[in-house]
Amino acid sequence: MELIERPSIQLVDSFQQVRTQSEKLCEPLQTEDFVVQPVVDVSPPKWHLGHTTWFFETFILQPYVKGYQLFNDSYNFVFNSYYESVGKRVVRTDRGNLSRPTVADVFAYRKHVDAHMLAWLENSESIPERAATLLALGLNHEQQHQELLLTDIKYILGNNPLQPLYRPSAAEKSTAANDVSFSEVQEGMHTIGYQEEGFHFDNEKGVHKVFLHPFAIRNSLVTCGEYLEFIRAGGYQNFRFWLSDGWAWVNTEKAEAPMYWHKMDGVWHQYTLGGLQPIDPSVPVTHINYYEAEAFARWAGLRLPTEFEWEAASRRLSPSAPSTSNFVESERYHPVAQKPGNLQLFGDAWEWTQSAYLPYPYFKTEEGAVGEYNGKFMVNQMVLRGGSCATPANHIRATYRNFFQANLRWQFTGIRLAKHI
Amino acid sequence: MELIERPSIQLVDSFQQVRTQSEKLCEPLQTEDFVVQPVVDVSPPKWHLGHTTWFFETFILQPYVKGYQLFNDSYNFVFNSYYESVGKRVVRTDRGNLSRPTVADVFAYRKHVDAHMLAWLENSESIPERAATLLALGLNHEQQHQELLLTDIKYILGNNPLQPLYRPSAAEKSTAANDVSFSEVQEGMHTIGYQEEGFHFDNEKGVHKVFLHPFAIRNSLVTCGEYLEFIRAGGYQNFRFWLSDGWAWVNTEKAEAPMYWHKMDGVWHQYTLGGLQPIDPSVPVTHINYYEAEAFARWAGLRLPTEFEWEAASRRLSPSAPSTSNFVESERYHPVAQKPGNLQLFGDAWEWTQSAYLPYPYFKTEEGAVGEYNGKFMVNQMVLRGGSCATPANHIRATYRNFFQANLRWQFTGIRLAKHI
Amino acid sequence: MELIERPSIQLVDSFQQVRTQSEKLCEPLQTEDFVVQPVVDVSPPKWHLGHTTWFFETFILQPYVKGYQLFNDSYNFVFNSYYESVGKRVVRTDRGNLSRPTVADVFAYRKHVDAHMLAWLENSESIPERAATLLALGLNHEQQHQELLLTDIKYILGNNPLQPLYRPSAAEKSTAANDVSFSEVQEGMHTIGYQEEGFHFDNEKGVHKVFLHPFAIRNSLVTCGEYLEFIRAGGYQNFRFWLSDGWAWVNTEKAEAPMYWHKMDGVWHQYTLGGLQPIDPSVPVTHINYYEAEAFARWAGLRLPTEFEWEAASRRLSPSAPSTSNFVESERYHPVAQKPGNLQLFGDAWEWTQSAYLPYPYFKTEEGAVGEYNGKFMVNQMVLRGGSCATPANHIRATYRNFFQANLRWQFTGIRLAKHI
Amino acid sequence: MELIERPSIQLVDSFQQVRTQSEKLCEPLQTEDFVVQPVVDVSPPKWHLGHTTWFFETFILQPYVKGYQLFNDSYNFVFNSYYESVGKRVVRTDRGNLSRPTVADVFAYRKHVDAHMLAWLENSESIPERAATLLALGLNHEQQHQELLLTDIKYILGNNPLQPLYRPSAAEKSTAANDVSFSEVQEGMHTIGYQEEGFHFDNEKGVHKVFLHPFAIRNSLVTCGEYLEFIRAGGYQNFRFWLSDGWAWVNTEKAEAPMYWHKMDGVWHQYTLGGLQPIDPSVPVTHINYYEAEAFARWAGLRLPTEFEWEAASRRLSPSAPSTSNFVESERYHPVAQKPGNLQLFGDAWEWTQSAYLPYPYFKTEEGAVGEYNGKFMVNQMVLRGGSCATPANHIRATYRNFFQANLRWQFTGIRLAKHI
Repeated sequence: MELIERPSIQLVDSFQQVRTQSEKLCEPLQTEDFVVQPVVDVSPPKWHLGHTTWFFETFILQPYVKGYQLFNDSYNFVFNSYYESVGKRVVRTDRGNLSRPTVADVFAYRKHVDAHMLAWLENSESIPERAATLLALGLNHEQQHQELLLTDIKYILGNNPLQPLYRPSAAEKSTAANDVSFSEVQEGMHTIGYQEEGFHFDNEKGVHKVFLHPFAIRNSLVTCGEYLEFIRAGGYQNFRFWLSDGWAWVNTEKAEAPMYWHKMDGVWHQYTLGGLQPIDPSVPVTHINYYEAEAFARWAGLRLPTEFEWEAASRRLSPSAPSTSNFVESERYHPVAQKPGNLQLFGDAWEWTQSAYLPYPYFKTEEGAVGEYNGKFMVNQMVLRGGSCATPANHIRATYRNFFQANLRWQFTGIRLAKHI
Repeated sequence: MELIERPSIQLVDSFQQVRTQSEKLCEPLQTEDFVVQPVVDVSPPKWHLGHTTWFFETFILQPYVKGYQLFNDSYNFVFNSYYESVGKRVVRTDRGNLSRPTVADVFAYRKHVDAHMLAWLENSESIPERAATLLALGLNHEQQHQELLLTDIKYILGNNPLQPLYRPSAAEKSTAANDVSFSEVQEGMHTIGYQEEGFHFDNEKGVHKVFLHPFAIRNSLVTCGEYLEFIRAGGYQNFRFWLSDGWAWVNTEKAEAPMYWHKMDGVWHQYTLGGLQPIDPSVPVTHINYYEAEAFARWAGLRLPTEFEWEAASRRLSPSAPSTSNFVESERYHPVAQKPGNLQLFGDAWEWTQSAYLPYPYFKTEEGAVGEYNGKFMVNQMVLRGGSCATPANHIRATYRNFFQANLRWQFTGIRLAKHI
Repeated sequence: MELIERPSIQLVDSFQQVRTQSEKLCEPLQTEDFVVQPVVDVSPPKWHLGHTTWFFETFILQPYVKGYQLFNDSYNFVFNSYYESVGKRVVRTDRGNLSRPTVADVFAYRKHVDAHMLAWLENSESIPERAATLLALGLNHEQQHQELLLTDIKYILGNNPLQPLYRPSAAEKSTAANDVSFSEVQEGMHTIGYQEEGFHFDNEKGVHKVFLHPFAIRNSLVTCGEYLEFIRAGGYQNFRFWLSDGWAWVNTEKAEAPMYWHKMDGVWHQYTLGGLQPIDPSVPVTHINYYEAEAFARWAGLRLPTEFEWEAASRRLSPSAPSTSNFVESERYHPVAQKPGNLQLFGDAWEWTQSAYLPYPYFKTEEGAVGEYNGKFMVNQMVLRGGSCATPANHIRATYRNFFQANLRWQFTGIRLAKHI
Repeated sequence: MELIERPSIQLVDSFQQVRTQSEKLCEPLQTEDFVVQPVVDVSPPKWHLGHTTWFFETFILQPYVKGYQLFNDSYNFVFNSYYESVGKRVVRTDRGNLSRPTVADVFAYRKHVDAHMLAWLENSESIPERAATLLALGLNHEQQHQELLLTDIKYILGNNPLQPLYRPSAAEKSTAANDVSFSEVQEGMHTIGYQEEGFHFDNEKGVHKVFLHPFAIRNSLVTCGEYLEFIRAGGYQNFRFWLSDGWAWVNTEKAEAPMYWHKMDGVWHQYTLGGLQPIDPSVPVTHINYYEAEAFARWAGLRLPTEFEWEAASRRLSPSAPSTSNFVESERYHPVAQKPGNLQLFGDAWEWTQSAYLPYPYFKTEEGAVGEYNGKFMVNQMVLRGGSCATPANHIRATYRNFFQANLRWQFTGIRLAKHI
């Protein structure tokens, strides 16, 4: 068994920081907010808190910490998400039907697991390399759930008839003029995939080369103001702009605007984590699905970029480390300085690409339960790039592949435009 | 406007007793237990607490108390159940998706409404007769929801993978031998419907005469032991015992025992409000639906009584005031002394009858919103008689008509057998 | 084994008449019309032709005719309707998915079975009593399917975008003034159920007595003209007239008129077997379900009769043999002479009663497969009385109990009004 | 308006050949077989015959032939498939509910349209270029429906409990040893898309370059024998081989073998157009969906090729004109000579690729209704390449992109394996 040296203080700090952050995000909640699941894609916040804890208990404490006793035998059934190899589980649609374990139980579970994790980290002379890998995966996994926590909380509160707010918004609104210009990338070969030393998911591996025809990519995201023009031009009433599945979606859902938009006394408003507010035309439109993004692009005579164009553009045009929005200070729309090289690529919205979520040429599924992490979802989903205002800052990178079904819009999803040149 | 004299102290006491009792029933709950709705028929306990309060606010405080201010404008939308005349409402399937109002909000709502109700009751020289009628209706309405509170809580806890108990059971089990004899009622005319002075629902009105052929009715309910014989005889595998809709239900649900029954290591157990316990063969079987009751009767070569036979039998055979089980001391199965005249007719289980829920000959729907109380449900449901261990004691009477769809079994429902002679 | 004497020529004639009539009803059809099943309740005409034939093959030829060879082994699977005791079968929703057996195959099947049946009838010195009973049942069964053939053909053609007609209508329209008067029946005991010698179904047995309070019953059915008033008065827009399940049905189906009614250029038309025609206000309204019948009655300040009132009224008020409409000459609305004693009780439309379909006091299910004929449907359906323009004339009698679910309206169903006096 | 010269005799011949071929494919059918739609994806054969005719009437006769009278005003509603720009239409699930127009009507419709088309082709001095383009599209469109005719007929007959055959099979079975070797393609640039002069669909346009890493592709399709090994190895019971959506599909459908496979007395059989036959282990497996293809490849430690690899391989390795199987002589499995260069790429089965159906870089939707032909389906589907035994021979080419949802398997779909080297 390969071992790595004594866990660093930095690693211990990371563990504590990530674990604390999940709980901090829940501070504004009432107990009841932790429990409900208004639609199948939204999980109860207490489930997120328990599931991320279960991950450490199942994949680290059980196999690597001698004599560890499970906090509660039944929790594997309650908190397993989709790992077939780890046994039966509560069906996904039932997560919101469970009043127990209570929120207090879940916090006790977290405390118990954290104590054992920290004892192990602090007292081990060395830890197996595999355990270290799983630890890093567990932390990144929890960060993914931090984003879901925010989007799920937004859904829970924003679909409540009382429309309570999550946290008063401290957002300074962007006053910068919107940059509708395009940057060009010339024809040529590009290397795709993660090539550095840090943490990354298995779906970013399989570094490979792609040839791209010349293209141009817009320097900013589509704004609410632009999207409003699409609505006013009858965008939701004209089948010509829509994919066939998209048009069926429009008609089934009677969709006429992004999720969370409400027309009140003739004025469009948007539910935000800071409450209901009139639409700010200068901020990026969010909470649209692939069908809407694609229809908007078609209406505008343009198209969405592929994920390869997106990654190539980010490397060519914005080569320095991503500068991200910071959710902690404002829900989003952190004023983005329009400095050269910052193309709003990171930290505002997950940008739908015209690429289906499929394996890279040399992709390999990992052994064991963690092999179920990404690979088994590689069909019927589209890739999103960039990271949103709800994405943890150190969880954003140019090679990160997010993915969702084409009809979903409860994430902070936005629109980047591209064209061939 | 007709007025009744100053509200009596007894009326004030009743109001306080009923209102307090609902809250008392919720004492063993965790906050989370108040929120969930695992199936459409089960409402979140906080919804019951709010809805019964909304009834008084909407039908009494608003119309009769000058200057009354609504506690919260949005609550009509949240807490209206099915009154079309009182406006739009949260769709029934969404009740479990609402984290707000919180449990604390709902208790504050109750406190607010109770204070105004009591002030009105205590300070009025007289109250309009209509308001008095509505007050009585409101109290009986709340008692109906007290029964639902218990059955819904049982469903919420009993379907949780942790199977928490509601309250430790103090039940002494019945040791009495089961009385499987029958009492006979001779052919003749019977008067059906409520004929006294006290409170009763509109569906009990329309006093009328029915002629009944001679019949016999069993002196006790079918027990778990007897039902177990039905199961062991292949009752759930043989279509011959079942109505066509019932057989479809068996196959769709893969039913093989009453709700809450679990076979563990070869032994049948039952989830009760006191937790999971081995089946006691001497207690009445409960949580079976009409299909199961009818199939059991057919298997036994007998039938269910009609609601008219049931009411006639109760008058002829058990003429004194109903002596009921007492939920407070034990979940149910209060040892029923097998004294003459006590045919276990009241307070153990709601007994399925072979009668569809239809209007009595002279039934008239009341004017206004309260006219929606009973009459509009008179199709596609079956009548149940008697009252269960969860029914408030002063809410039980020989003429009471309960009704549910034939497939439902989350109530404490049981089986009475009958035959022609 | 009890035997009956040599089958009479009359019996042979009946057999031939009934069998021929089914085929005659199909004469106007194209081959394609025999095949489709546009909704689950409507069976393909070729299925009716095959199923009625299967009944004779399965219940008579197989058990009683020595050496009989099945026409085709697979037909039991194809043509069994709902007899659990006779083995597996094509699920009901799949009947319209079967192109084979072809129409020609089905006619060949009929010819084969008829030949064997006739040979048996003509050559037997005696036949077992049980077989004679099954033969009578088979013929009445086929007559029931003759009615379904017509209503299913009407659905198939009337819901086709080309709206082809079945047969040119020779209907003389009724010019008689509508008799909106009521006949009274005084309080008293009535005998219910079939008491004569002829054929009848098991659900008519269980002769028993009922006591009825005094009531009045209208002397004619509700007309299209009257129903139009209900529509114009906003009947489909006002929840107050509707049962809760009915109001849900109105909203789900967006119902605003009876089935087959179409508003064309502002004028209401009705698809009939003779094609699309303007509404004739003097003829009985048909193709309404129980919810609509009940809502109309409530709007009119009246109610539907119970099945007991209906049967009692028919005996007291119209004691002679039923005089029925004759489908062969006109689709319906055979001019009904308003002679005394003819209350339009028979042969115009099946009249919804306010009675659920439940067993009579002494009802007993028969042994064997034919015991599945009626009894297992005794839940969740309402009783209809009288017989429609599509009912075979000798299939109409005062004690006949038809039954359908409350939401169905593809039969020729109408409205009789009643009230207490 | 650009005109092309007088329509050539060859064009007239093509028109006649294609139109005749559709009818020839239906010769073995009974009238009833033309009518049914057992699942939503399968259209009634008469609908295919009418819809392909409607295409010529709508897109050529109406706009380009002066004075042309519609055969029947209602047919646009009946035979429009999915062209939003051409008005309302029968919902897709209702196609099998229409007994009219009859088969004879549809053939009359074909005759009428053909006569007008031929008159126009033969009598025109010149025809507009746009009309010529639409004519070619119409013919290719009809050829696509010829393939669907066969697969839909197979579904209709193969799912009938009588399992009738379509046409006696004259198939000589392949005796050739299966070639499980791989051909290699070295790393490099490839040109993708249609670059010649003939007919092709808009989705093949957008000629562009792709870079491919080195790979190997198997020289033959996966056989039934190999697939049987997968089944026997528990392939359908082990989640590890499956995509998450695929595993859900397996469990929902209780899938355990390809469509049309039946285990009879322990021996696997397959329904073919020639009837039910024991599995021939040497022929390609067909009627599997993307999930099954992907699972098989994963089980085998390999993968599916991308559509770009497939097209590149076909150019490098099999550069001559495709030699196809010939459906007319045998259902399929035309003995494929294992000559060099024939890699079974064309005419046996549509081969699932690991590529989602998305636009090529320079893809442009065409103006007008025909722009709805391909582009609007570019989401949630996977690309298939090659052409099957049911594909018209002159409808097969290396650049052809077929596409279906990942769960469908009623087409002749097969498995090609690939790997990186």
